[in-house]
Amino acid sequence: MRTIWLAQDGHSVEIIDQTALPHELVVAKLENSKQAEIAIKDMLVRGAPLIGATAAFGMALAMREDCSDENLYQAYDMLYKTRPTAVNLRWALDDMLEKLKPANFDDRVEIAYKRAQEIADEDVKICHDIGNNGLEVIRKIYNEKNKPEVFNILTHCNAGWLATVDWGTALAPIYQAHDAGIPVHVYVDETRPRNQGASLTAWELKQHGVPFDLIVDNVGGHLMQHGMIDMCIVGTDRTTSKGDVCNKIGTYLKALAAFDNDVPFYVALPSPTIDWSVGDGIKEIPIEERSPKEVTHMKGQNQKGDVEEVLITIKDCNVKNYGFDVTPARLVTGLITEKGVCEASKKGLIDLFSKK
Amino acid sequence: MRTIWLAQDGHSVEIIDQTALPHELVVAKLENSKQAEIAIKDMLVRGAPLIGATAAFGMALAMREDCSDENLYQAYDMLYKTRPTAVNLRWALDDMLEKLKPANFDDRVEIAYKRAQEIADEDVKICHDIGNNGLEVIRKIYNEKNKPEVFNILTHCNAGWLATVDWGTALAPIYQAHDAGIPVHVYVDETRPRNQGASLTAWELKQHGVPFDLIVDNVGGHLMQHGMIDMCIVGTDRTTSKGDVCNKIGTYLKALAAFDNDVPFYVALPSPTIDWSVGDGIKEIPIEERSPKEVTHMKGQNQKGDVEEVLITIKDCNVKNYGFDVTPARLVTGLITEKGVCEASKKGLIDLFSKK
Repeated sequence: MRTIWLAQDGHSVEIIDQTALPHELVVAKLENSKQAEIAIKDMLVRGAPLIGATAAFGMALAMREDCSDENLYQAYDMLYKTRPTAVNLRWALDDMLEKLKPANFDDRVEIAYKRAQEIADEDVKICHDIGNNGLEVIRKIYNEKNKPEVFNILTHCNAGWLATVDWGTALAPIYQAHDAGIPVHVYVDETRPRNQGASLTAWELKQHGVPFDLIVDNVGGHLMQHGMIDMCIVGTDRTTSKGDVCNKIGTYLKALAAFDNDVPFYVALPSPTIDWSVGDGIKEIPIEERSPKEVTHMKGQNQKGDVEEVLITIKDCNVKNYGFDVTPARLVTGLITEKGVCEASKKGLIDLFSKK
Repeated sequence: MRTIWLAQDGHSVEIIDQTALPHELVVAKLENSKQAEIAIKDMLVRGAPLIGATAAFGMALAMREDCSDENLYQAYDMLYKTRPTAVNLRWALDDMLEKLKPANFDDRVEIAYKRAQEIADEDVKICHDIGNNGLEVIRKIYNEKNKPEVFNILTHCNAGWLATVDWGTALAPIYQAHDAGIPVHVYVDETRPRNQGASLTAWELKQHGVPFDLIVDNVGGHLMQHGMIDMCIVGTDRTTSKGDVCNKIGTYLKALAAFDNDVPFYVALPSPTIDWSVGDGIKEIPIEERSPKEVTHMKGQNQKGDVEEVLITIKDCNVKNYGFDVTPARLVTGLITEKGVCEASKKGLIDLFSKK
């Protein structure tokens, strides 16, 4: 099962509605570009690579509605504005625009669907290669530690197959290590406020049979102080040319704890998340502020089994809800990409990506 | 209003049931020592100083039931086992034992109630003095920063009057600064998994009229990177003789971020939280593991206004739920006590507490 695919009607797009997990596995149908916009904005789909693929299909849906230049640019703008952080979104939209703009109106629909499907397929290939490369990193640390009975990996948020089209970024190496017989056990950060760790990563790992424990976001530092984490692997929504990593809020705190306790801290990423135009992530990347309701309310299953939303704070509570933070390259041990593993630095990235 | 007081019947003890906040202000009556045990264990009362005061009243209730030596020791053991981290608990119980053991059976009830009330009253005085001393720390940093329009303080968990008998530890200086006209604004960490920040600190600050914003525990590092925090003040459940601080899980992560961004990180504490018998907090303090249900379920108000508990993870999710972590002294700018402010070190503590 993938997270996004062409529906049987040949033009609609189907996705897993991730807001219903972990309580229900719901498939949602996107019949037009507006629905693709909403799916990204309301986080029915999330995760930088999957946002990119959904935006690409959104462009295809838009071309089917009206293949004029005007609508091409309107659809680009509408989809671009859905989420400000993931650079894959811009990358996918630019790629679609580049292919569609020079094409005849008559060919645009076909080109758009073909290219969107390619972007999705390429993502699967990229994530699989990240998994291969990350597996070697895990295997090396596992061997250096003399093959412990349990090899503990901490991850933050969800960078699994639900965040991509398939496989995932941070979780791809973990799945491959598990399948290769390395006794991985994952500490899953809950990842407030949207709890992607608790609701998506835990669900994914359980499906795949990878042992894990859920922890609240406050716990990782304590575990690292006590030698209970062998390495960290997280994903990223945007990686700067200097190797700074913009990922789900709280990633920076875990990187600090890893650095303070000599725990290797790796970031797994497909190359479309690299923003070569940005150097200093802290100064240059605008951080998305999201609705206070994500913090004040919590959705869950009540005793009757119904999904219900409850208020968990005082009424009308003042909230600041930042969605991401930037982990400076100095705290990152290495970047795991589809091309290989490199140091989190300008030199590391340039050397790796200038290779044939 | 205090958090604990003698009931009108002259022997029962009344407390604010903090598990009902912020949705309701409920007063619970403790009529016997078993109920005092449950109140601490189930966290109707929490916060190191308040746990100490409740245990002291629990001993008084026990003496009223049976003032024999046997029951004296039984009550001590029963109350001591309620929570493993707060050293005030042991301090208060030892103090009660010391007063009660040499006393005649006939006098024990009276002595117990008198001493329990004194412990509560002393806590109020201690917290007020912490507030005075902390106010001077805030004033100094506020002046050094050239009196900004808003002075931003980050706090973790609840170390307000709800955690003590009155005033609080970390919040006492904040209340005094606010009352003294310093434009403090507080960033309140939600404090998963029990959300003491969201449900207690936010409630307290709102009552007192101190401006605040609630943030999830992941956000503090981002704010500090962007100069949005002028200082941190937290409480502590146990402070070692070397100045290590055992406080609510996640405190260490905020201290790391403060250190990384040159933000002053202060810990406010009454002297009974100092454990002179412990040096290295990370190696020596056992960390309480609590029920997985604190992580998997969340209590809140549904649309009908009823308080309901919902499951927020997959069913039967594996969880590790550590309650505290230790912040090493090297990350602490200073300790604010009722005796004054000192460096977080053996020398700092000894110099301060050997003063007349």
